[in-house]
Amino acid sequence: MSGYYTQEAHGPFEMIGIGALELEDGGSIPDCRLAVATHGTLNAAKDNAILVPTWYSGTSKIMEQVYIGRGRALDPTKYFIIVVNQIGSGLSTSPSNAEGALAGARFPQVRIGDDVRAQHRLLTQHFGIERLALVVGGSMGAQQTYEWAVRYPDMVRRAAAIAGTARNTEHDFMYAQTLIEAITSDPAFAGGAYKNSADVAAGLKRQAKLWTVMGWSTEFFRAKRHHALGFDSMEAFVDNFMTGYFAPMDPNNLNAMAWKWQRGDVSRHTGGDLAAALGRIKARTFVMPISHDMFFPPADCQAEQQLIPNSEFRPLASIDGHLALFGTDAQMLAQLDAHLLALLGAAAP
Amino acid sequence: MSGYYTQEAHGPFEMIGIGALELEDGGSIPDCRLAVATHGTLNAAKDNAILVPTWYSGTSKIMEQVYIGRGRALDPTKYFIIVVNQIGSGLSTSPSNAEGALAGARFPQVRIGDDVRAQHRLLTQHFGIERLALVVGGSMGAQQTYEWAVRYPDMVRRAAAIAGTARNTEHDFMYAQTLIEAITSDPAFAGGAYKNSADVAAGLKRQAKLWTVMGWSTEFFRAKRHHALGFDSMEAFVDNFMTGYFAPMDPNNLNAMAWKWQRGDVSRHTGGDLAAALGRIKARTFVMPISHDMFFPPADCQAEQQLIPNSEFRPLASIDGHLALFGTDAQMLAQLDAHLLALLGAAAP
Repeated sequence: MSGYYTQEAHGPFEMIGIGALELEDGGSIPDCRLAVATHGTLNAAKDNAILVPTWYSGTSKIMEQVYIGRGRALDPTKYFIIVVNQIGSGLSTSPSNAEGALAGARFPQVRIGDDVRAQHRLLTQHFGIERLALVVGGSMGAQQTYEWAVRYPDMVRRAAAIAGTARNTEHDFMYAQTLIEAITSDPAFAGGAYKNSADVAAGLKRQAKLWTVMGWSTEFFRAKRHHALGFDSMEAFVDNFMTGYFAPMDPNNLNAMAWKWQRGDVSRHTGGDLAAALGRIKARTFVMPISHDMFFPPADCQAEQQLIPNSEFRPLASIDGHLALFGTDAQMLAQLDAHLLALLGAAAP
Repeated sequence: MSGYYTQEAHGPFEMIGIGALELEDGGSIPDCRLAVATHGTLNAAKDNAILVPTWYSGTSKIMEQVYIGRGRALDPTKYFIIVVNQIGSGLSTSPSNAEGALAGARFPQVRIGDDVRAQHRLLTQHFGIERLALVVGGSMGAQQTYEWAVRYPDMVRRAAAIAGTARNTEHDFMYAQTLIEAITSDPAFAGGAYKNSADVAAGLKRQAKLWTVMGWSTEFFRAKRHHALGFDSMEAFVDNFMTGYFAPMDPNNLNAMAWKWQRGDVSRHTGGDLAAALGRIKARTFVMPISHDMFFPPADCQAEQQLIPNSEFRPLASIDGHLALFGTDAQMLAQLDAHLLALLGAAAP
């Protein structure tokens, strides 16, 4: 077991048990534990809570670095900000830390809806929160944000979905499939029964290369943004930055998240009718794709925005593409903050 | 040996020997043979010749289907159109048909410049052609078109580079690398020593999925163009259309072409100075990216066009993206023909 999924690397976070979680696809997690990082203080009225779910491969640590800070839109001196690591993230209950019948490749299939029900239980039962000033998330965090707004429309006053969709596209499904197969095709993956992540280094590096191709944008590389980030060559960027990022992660964790990502779909609540599902949303909603995102492109997000009653299309401009989520583009972060400030200042149900 | 690389599947073509070809990266092909398909008749002045080089995985057959026909811009009643299958294509000298020291994984590294010198010898020595009315190619065909215009500026009167670049980008290199590794990571590839393409079916299918993600566009799938092409689901599209296309191909052939594609770079003639290389071009040149191309995007092509003296930027609009080259979008083909007619009608040196 590496030191990657630890308080030292990703903390501080608190492990909070929410009991047994029945899963939409069958089975259950008997003792589901969520890794939760909070910032700020819940006020007496309990109306200053903001929920931040996490994206694929991300943890509460990078959410803090990218979104949260004094003077930022998500200001811990004003709000009580709750970052909940998704199931499978490696911090909350995950293939890498589950034991016995749930360990490793035996981990059950978990859906976005399972995460959101777990988070709902956490907020209502552990924190006593009945309404959220805002749910904001990027990528798989956006999937969870949409699921929140559709599943619990009276609880979510505002929603900000960044670089993600309410119903995953066929194209995006296939991209995630290539990520999964980069790992599963490595003989050392052994159907999930590898001993250490390092055994699957070749598969993880292939996944890092796929992220290199699709995660940024062609304009990013033409503008030599990878050089600006400190790497002399594409090879150094892939080997050190991209592979360095994915190499310590647990392959079963990544695949559990990717499986979930592929199937994000709020229209499961309405028999496949996306317009009906998005029509349920009461939250004041900002839809915020990133201009150069190659797999959650603005047009896909705008098509959904047009189905959400009280919504605005607020795209973010960045040639860093999807991985501008990493916080690599200060101008994009400034746009993000401006939009979130506007949203937090806007009237909401 | 499958029946894929045959006259029945890809003919008619003629095998023409051009002698020993010394290679830029060392070694040689002792008896280099080019598979050549011609359409129309060379006139007495020998000034109606059009050269069409081929793209990755493509052969002269699809070039004919996509570009050539009575009433089309490339009209065989007016022009003598010569389609030359690239080295490594499976029809010209390739890993799959070479013998002895060149067979299979032992095939030497061949560059775009090697192909263009081989084609030059074919045109001048076999056909007695000294000037080309037009060189036109898509993708790797565009790479060869640029190489022709830079290497033999006095021989190329007009050039049309479709969906390709003169110097490959780092992003595109990495995309091609993922294609190569989809194959080489398959244990059955065995370092290129597999017995049959079918042995490497898993790797070829993974490559087909990468092409599914990057070859079309997000808009293509949003508009359900894959349904319009006759497939009920993404799964059917991937299994039947995309995998069906790649499955019979030879993995070593594909990798030889991908290696060549990665290194396309006319600035090899000028010590890495791209502006100097493109400044050599005398041809009247149309630069024709496809609007939704995810790896030869318009901006990359336009940046090169601005370095070519007698050139115009003539983008093609199609949500089919790069693989609009397959001829799936009739409106794109109409645009292509209009541009090529304009180019063929334009004054040229």
